[in-house]
Amino acid sequence: MTLIVVGSVALDSIYTPFGETADALGGSAVYFSVAGSLLHRVHVVGVVGDDYPVAELDRLAPRGIDWSGVERAAGESFRWKGKYSYDLQSRETLETRLGVFATFQPRLPAALHAAKFVFLGNIDPELQHGVLDQITSPTLVVCDTMNYWIQSKKPVLMELLKRVDILMVNDSEARELSGDWNIHRAGRWILAHGPKRVVIKQGEFGALLIEPGRTFYVPAFPLEEVFDPTGAGDAFAGGFMGYLARAGMADSDHLRRAMVYGAAMGSFAVSQFGIRGFDDVTTVDVEQRVRAFYDLTHVAEAERVP
Amino acid sequence: MTLIVVGSVALDSIYTPFGETADALGGSAVYFSVAGSLLHRVHVVGVVGDDYPVAELDRLAPRGIDWSGVERAAGESFRWKGKYSYDLQSRETLETRLGVFATFQPRLPAALHAAKFVFLGNIDPELQHGVLDQITSPTLVVCDTMNYWIQSKKPVLMELLKRVDILMVNDSEARELSGDWNIHRAGRWILAHGPKRVVIKQGEFGALLIEPGRTFYVPAFPLEEVFDPTGAGDAFAGGFMGYLARAGMADSDHLRRAMVYGAAMGSFAVSQFGIRGFDDVTTVDVEQRVRAFYDLTHVAEAERVP
Repeated sequence: MTLIVVGSVALDSIYTPFGETADALGGSAVYFSVAGSLLHRVHVVGVVGDDYPVAELDRLAPRGIDWSGVERAAGESFRWKGKYSYDLQSRETLETRLGVFATFQPRLPAALHAAKFVFLGNIDPELQHGVLDQITSPTLVVCDTMNYWIQSKKPVLMELLKRVDILMVNDSEARELSGDWNIHRAGRWILAHGPKRVVIKQGEFGALLIEPGRTFYVPAFPLEEVFDPTGAGDAFAGGFMGYLARAGMADSDHLRRAMVYGAAMGSFAVSQFGIRGFDDVTTVDVEQRVRAFYDLTHVAEAERVP
Repeated sequence: MTLIVVGSVALDSIYTPFGETADALGGSAVYFSVAGSLLHRVHVVGVVGDDYPVAELDRLAPRGIDWSGVERAAGESFRWKGKYSYDLQSRETLETRLGVFATFQPRLPAALHAAKFVFLGNIDPELQHGVLDQITSPTLVVCDTMNYWIQSKKPVLMELLKRVDILMVNDSEARELSGDWNIHRAGRWILAHGPKRVVIKQGEFGALLIEPGRTFYVPAFPLEEVFDPTGAGDAFAGGFMGYLARAGMADSDHLRRAMVYGAAMGSFAVSQFGIRGFDDVTTVDVEQRVRAFYDLTHVAEAERVP
C-alpha cells in the first residue's frame, strides 16, 4: 500500500544541554520517513532550496525512502533553530526561516495520486487541502497541525478535519483547538468535528488514541538518557503510518498496535541528536522495542484473573 | 494476611473550582483504608483529637476497616486546608494544623505486631522507624514520604529505606530525594539505597513500578470529569496494598497487578469530593474498572504478532 508524507525537509540547528548541531537534516517529512521506512517504503513530497545537501538525502534512499517527490527550488532551504531547557522539558525557537517553503505548492508525481496511506505533516492547512485534492481514493488520511495554524487559519483547518480520518496532534494543540483543558473532553470535541479518531501526543508522558467509546494509551519508553526530543512526534507518526501501510489495514486493533510502533520510533528518535538515533536501528531492533513496550504495560493474560 | 496502615486521620477543608468542603474526613490513612477495604480488611493506626467526628469513622467500619488502633487524644485533630488551581494541576496549602498529631507516638495494639502487609503513610520517618520496631516479621513493608522529611530528616529517612521493601512516592519526591531530574535514573538511585522496588506516582500521568531490570507503567484512567485530586495517591496505595494482602504475595507479577488496582482506586478517589468517590463503589465496580484498564493499555495477545 503506497504511503506518502507531505511535510518539511529542513535544516535544523539545535542546542541542548548535551551538545549542539548546525544545519543538520531535519523537518517533519525527514523524521517521518527515516522512522517509517523501517516498516514500509515511504514516498516524500516536499521542497528544498538549492543549498540543500541532497547527497545526504540520497544516502538515506536505500533505506526505502523515495525522495523523487521533493522539488528542488531556487532559493534557501527551510531552516529552524531551537534551544532546549536543561531538563529538555521546554524549548525556545530561536529562528525560523521559511525560505522556499514560503511559496511551496505541493504537486504530487502522477504515481502518487493513487496513494492509500497519507500523512499530512504540519504545513498550512490550505496546502493540506491541496494535497488531498490530488489523491483519488485514500484508505487512511492522517493529519498534523500546530498552534500557529489553529490561531491563524482555524476555518480552513476545521474544513480539513472533515476530510481526514485521524487528527494527530500534541496535547497543547488539542487543548487550543477545542478550548478545553481536559484532554479527554478535548479529544471528544475533535471527534465531533470530523475525524473518526484522534491521536494526542504527550511527549514524555506517551500518547492517547481516542476512538468513539474506546481509548488506548501507550507510554513513552523509560529512557535514562534523552539527548534531543526534536522530531520525536514526527518519528512517532512515521512508525504509526509505516506499520499501518505494511498491514494494509486501519481498524481499531491495528491502530492500537500502530501506537506502540509509533512510541518505539519516538524512543529511538530522542536517543541521539537529529536523525542519528536511527543510524544503527534494524527491523529486529524495532520488533524488540515493541516487545519491550508490551512488557512495560501488559499484565500477562493468565495472570489477569485476580 | 493482616494489613495495617499508619498515617494521618484528618479533617480536610478543600477548595476546588467545582465546590468546597469543610472539615471533611481525610488524611492518608482514611483514603488508604476506604480504598483498600474494597479488597481486604484494613487495620488503621493513628490518632485523632477529642473534636473528631468518630461516629463518621464508625460508619465506615462495616466496609472492613478496623479503627481500634486509632488513639483518641486530648486536643485538636489534624487539619489541612488546601486550594486547587482552575485546572486542578496545582494546589496551595492554605493551612496545616498538626494538633494531636504533633506529639503522636504510634503504639500498635498487640494483635497487630504480627502484621504481614505494612503501609507506612507519610509521617515523620522517626515514627515510621518506631512502627517497624513493633512488627515482628512483616512480609512486605511499603513506605511513603514527602519533601518536608527529605529536607529536614534525610539521614533518618535513608536509614529507613534500608528497612522497607518498596518506597512509594510521587515524581517530585523521587527527584528531590535522588537529586536527579530523570525519573528513571532517580528510580535506579533509590533501588541502590535499600528498597527492592520503587513506585513513582505521576498524578494524571499514571505511575511506574521500577524493579531491577524491569519497569511497569500504568496510566491514570481517562476521566472527562475530575472533581478533587485530594487523596488519590493514598487511595492508590490502599488499592495496591489491599490487592497484595488479599493475594498474600508480593512477587513481580502480583506487584504489576497491584499497580492496576491502585490506579483503579485513584480514579474513584478523584471522581468526587473527599472520600465520597467511594460511596457507591462495589467490588464488582472495582473489577470492572481493572478490566477497563487492561482494555486501555493492552494489545490482545493474539494480535501482538505483527
